[in-house]
Amino acid sequence: MEHYINSENSKSSIVALLTDFGWKGAHYVASMKAVILKINPRINIIDLSHSVSPYSLIEASYLLKAAYPYFPKGTIFVSVIDPGVGTQRRIVVIKSSDDYFFVGPDNGIFPNALEENIELCYAVEDDFYFHKPVSHTFHGRDIMAPVGAYITTNVPLEKFGSVINPEDLTRIPIINEVNTKERRIKCTIQYVDDFGNITTTISVKKNDELTYHKSQGNIKLQKHQEVTIFVNDRSYRAKYVSHFAEVNPKSLLLMRGSTGFLEMSLNQGNAAEKLEISSGKIIEIQLSE
Amino acid sequence: MEHYINSENSKSSIVALLTDFGWKGAHYVASMKAVILKINPRINIIDLSHSVSPYSLIEASYLLKAAYPYFPKGTIFVSVIDPGVGTQRRIVVIKSSDDYFFVGPDNGIFPNALEENIELCYAVEDDFYFHKPVSHTFHGRDIMAPVGAYITTNVPLEKFGSVINPEDLTRIPIINEVNTKERRIKCTIQYVDDFGNITTTISVKKNDELTYHKSQGNIKLQKHQEVTIFVNDRSYRAKYVSHFAEVNPKSLLLMRGSTGFLEMSLNQGNAAEKLEISSGKIIEIQLSE
Amino acid sequence: MEHYINSENSKSSIVALLTDFGWKGAHYVASMKAVILKINPRINIIDLSHSVSPYSLIEASYLLKAAYPYFPKGTIFVSVIDPGVGTQRRIVVIKSSDDYFFVGPDNGIFPNALEENIELCYAVEDDFYFHKPVSHTFHGRDIMAPVGAYITTNVPLEKFGSVINPEDLTRIPIINEVNTKERRIKCTIQYVDDFGNITTTISVKKNDELTYHKSQGNIKLQKHQEVTIFVNDRSYRAKYVSHFAEVNPKSLLLMRGSTGFLEMSLNQGNAAEKLEISSGKIIEIQLSE
Repeated sequence: MEHYINSENSKSSIVALLTDFGWKGAHYVASMKAVILKINPRINIIDLSHSVSPYSLIEASYLLKAAYPYFPKGTIFVSVIDPGVGTQRRIVVIKSSDDYFFVGPDNGIFPNALEENIELCYAVEDDFYFHKPVSHTFHGRDIMAPVGAYITTNVPLEKFGSVINPEDLTRIPIINEVNTKERRIKCTIQYVDDFGNITTTISVKKNDELTYHKSQGNIKLQKHQEVTIFVNDRSYRAKYVSHFAEVNPKSLLLMRGSTGFLEMSLNQGNAAEKLEISSGKIIEIQLSE
Repeated sequence: MEHYINSENSKSSIVALLTDFGWKGAHYVASMKAVILKINPRINIIDLSHSVSPYSLIEASYLLKAAYPYFPKGTIFVSVIDPGVGTQRRIVVIKSSDDYFFVGPDNGIFPNALEENIELCYAVEDDFYFHKPVSHTFHGRDIMAPVGAYITTNVPLEKFGSVINPEDLTRIPIINEVNTKERRIKCTIQYVDDFGNITTTISVKKNDELTYHKSQGNIKLQKHQEVTIFVNDRSYRAKYVSHFAEVNPKSLLLMRGSTGFLEMSLNQGNAAEKLEISSGKIIEIQLSE
Repeated sequence: MEHYINSENSKSSIVALLTDFGWKGAHYVASMKAVILKINPRINIIDLSHSVSPYSLIEASYLLKAAYPYFPKGTIFVSVIDPGVGTQRRIVVIKSSDDYFFVGPDNGIFPNALEENIELCYAVEDDFYFHKPVSHTFHGRDIMAPVGAYITTNVPLEKFGSVINPEDLTRIPIINEVNTKERRIKCTIQYVDDFGNITTTISVKKNDELTYHKSQGNIKLQKHQEVTIFVNDRSYRAKYVSHFAEVNPKSLLLMRGSTGFLEMSLNQGNAAEKLEISSGKIIEIQLSE
């Protein structure tokens, strides 16, 4: 790495790291931080999470979406969930409409996390900004970390590579269908927390209306209405409520979660274990009349 | 958050975070850090621990007590073990007699961790200092983190809300009785470490005297004296020693731990598993004559 | 700690921490950071890893070797894997030939991690630089952390204690034999990752030559050659390849890992579980003719 900058003239910036390296992979995270600090020692590095389930793009996307808006404008997010390392998958750098930066493989995490609010997008191609030698197996350390660090030194994004039309970015295949006539929902599970609470990809407004494409009409959930959940060739009864305590212990419930998505939980229990669900799973929900 | 400060004029301060969010809850910790850095980007944020057993007030209190005096004076501790979120429990800000600051729910952690050395205590009430919108479920991010950050900008504590008499703070119900006549101890378990070592709430001086209210007389433990431990309707023999190796492998021992409390261990084994003990448990110890 | 420095005149430096304290031991790590920041509040503290298997010197050595060269020159590594605390084991401070600093017990981690490239070595003896009172059980916090911090304040290494000849440092007993005549390798396992991939102590060049003492002749591995692995009184067939996909699912393979060592893996499986191997284990590998 030959191109250090004068730390006195660089501004203090935040780089946040999101990986699936796990607790035992801390030394990989540390080597990314080392490369970043070599380029700009004044960067404040924050761990967003390293507990993403291995290779789970949808879970990483959910965590990024839930956390990034709380950071100061200008924060740079380096996201290394990279099952495609070693293949010809692209690495991209993105500026969002709300003035955050994102660096990582073009694997669908960013368009989903940013809800398509992408202002600028470039391929990461110019190896001037890479850490040499570039390994075959760890582009997080050798490409994504240094590119994230160089953004703090005011390198214009177009220096990293050729422009990409945001519409050409890879998308995570998310199923998110609301059939208003049959009052039936089909959706992907995007996150399961430590307590077994299950977050779907279905947005719910504060007035309990489901959010989806306008032309399809409208569904508003009624408090205490019963629903049937179909998963793994089995079905379960659940109730739409505002608080856990509105259903009996060990009973299933649906509610609007703190991130605005429809969530499933088991009062005083673990819904994910009961339903045998992990992130990425597709479920269907039949609303009653 | 509309009230950013000029980072050039703010001093560099330490905010230490203590939560029960766990390894999978890293993104919640990250969003607290994000809110803190929005208010004062020069704050040095240190993770005290995020591995507190869920909702364990006594364990959090022990970890805080064991770690806080090592930090520089003026360090601000934001403690988010918050089983009461959503209820009317108070949030408090405290200045200790030894010049540290503490922000968190009024759930008993602070009086215990500070051994009652509280100089100032205020309720956190003025939503001018909150992160908006304030969620129903995550006051750690929306209230406690920003209040901790504002302390570094020299906001006087009385600005946050009305004064509280420290005697009116909630206490953790700890049992800590030494019956000198019957030579019997009844106490709460405040911590169990990864190796199954069990820390009681009974203080032991370096000369092996038990510390308790003076009027009750005095008990001094004798090296190699035998004791009987009563827990879960069973009893166990153990020996008071200075080192593990003074008892046989797989034998129980009592010793003065590195934090000055009476501890129970199993030589080359896991005492907590053998005795089926976790933090919060109450045990009795009968000393021999 | 009476000897604080003027933070305005101290340079910003990096101290990286490597311990076996685990996720539940975060408060021990935090107290080390607290002591460091008391001495120099401008130090940037990076967690290298705290997930070292308890007391595993060879694993700690491997992680340090794999990560340290990515850090900026001058970085100070404080390594607290300390099964000997309480005995008369020495604590040492080292400057490597490539301008990094290392503080920790003299237990063999540093000579192995640095591949003997040690320029200066001193015993840590002068308690002027210790955090008082010095506990019997936690020299990481009371001796190693403050000594690491004082290095950033430009204390010359000889101030800490008497000079040590690097040849007199303790070594980790590593077996690393290549018998060129019998085409047989005997070596120690230095690391097992979360996925069960097994890293040996045998270096492999990019051209597939094994690296060992020159006088012994030469062995070059052939792609797709078969080998027999002897471990735990059992034997296993494996193939030397470049990518996992070159062997059948659930088949054993050998390859040159990203850190330049010979590694064993199970395609779509966990090699460490199959072979019942953890770090420190000794294995033999018989190459075919």
